[in-house]
Amino acid sequence: MYEGVLQNLIDELGRLPGIGPKSAQRIAFHILGADPVDVKRLAQALLEVKEKIHFCRICGNVATEDECLICRDPRRDDQVICVVEEPKDVVAIERTREFRGRYHVLGGAISPIDGIGPDDLRIRELMARLADGQVNELILATDPNLEGEATATYLARLVKPLGIKVTRLASGLPVGGDLEYADEVTLGRAFEGRRLLDV
Amino acid sequence: MYEGVLQNLIDELGRLPGIGPKSAQRIAFHILGADPVDVKRLAQALLEVKEKIHFCRICGNVATEDECLICRDPRRDDQVICVVEEPKDVVAIERTREFRGRYHVLGGAISPIDGIGPDDLRIRELMARLADGQVNELILATDPNLEGEATATYLARLVKPLGIKVTRLASGLPVGGDLEYADEVTLGRAFEGRRLLDV
Repeated sequence: MYEGVLQNLIDELGRLPGIGPKSAQRIAFHILGADPVDVKRLAQALLEVKEKIHFCRICGNVATEDECLICRDPRRDDQVICVVEEPKDVVAIERTREFRGRYHVLGGAISPIDGIGPDDLRIRELMARLADGQVNELILATDPNLEGEATATYLARLVKPLGIKVTRLASGLPVGGDLEYADEVTLGRAFEGRRLLDV
Repeated sequence: MYEGVLQNLIDELGRLPGIGPKSAQRIAFHILGADPVDVKRLAQALLEVKEKIHFCRICGNVATEDECLICRDPRRDDQVICVVEEPKDVVAIERTREFRGRYHVLGGAISPIDGIGPDDLRIRELMARLADGQVNELILATDPNLEGEATATYLARLVKPLGIKVTRLASGLPVGGDLEYADEVTLGRAFEGRRLLDV
């Protein structure tokens, strides 16, 4: 419908998550009217993320080096690992300032319906980290929904023979929701009230 | 909160219209996991639009040449000009296949509250196009809201001395809405039933 390059941009924007055809059109016209310097900066930011961001060798969080900022921080407590589904969950928990240990990012949750099993998550890497006996608590902070609970139960059973204390974030999080949408206070409370997972 | 380049992308995305902080984050993580080729294509599409798209010298529509596709088309009727607010309105009207004349894109509507007066729109250019006496009908297809109606009334009064028939799209368009959101049938009906504007 539009001149080639404009339609092309609308199509490309429409492939992004949560951007429908009308939003894509609105953003494309915004780009058309925007300062070229701003557009160049956005294009650059897109390319730089692909170029410079990797996943941390240790925990699976986003990182610009081999290891992420948190894994490189010597002041963090090596005895506690908090397991989350996604890097954005790390950010949500960091925002509460309740937790000073390390993280482990699974890269998702067990979901048979989406064809995601334990082997598709960074569970082998987690077990390797637990092998040296330095960790005495594993906090399972997967999302409080069906997949997150299943993943937490699976991990709790897997880790049980190692004799490590396994905890789960307290209720307080709205059930059926996504961890990343919780406000700081709710998420902080959930951290305080985490309970022993007995399976 | 995130590694510099990732936060940077989230910030840049958050500046786009209709993209809040959560959407920006979601898109940024989508980019992080996307095929580098796709991301390069999106970045390229952004830059190409700025580089190659201008506004048509004659009608103000988007164009890759000096003149847009419609102004360059010899089969269009030179005796009718349809005045719209934005280039996306041209696309909406083209989709109805009801109109075979030319367009004039104002670049907005009169809106004192936003500080947009007649001098901020391409009205002088419109009057220049009407000067040669070739046009015998001017269809005012500005949005059926307050600003669009005000702009139509202003233009009708301005054009009256030239003795050109001035029409306005028929009701059928939901009042208070935006022209671009009308479905093809409604917009087509509105074209058929356009009425003489007597001021």
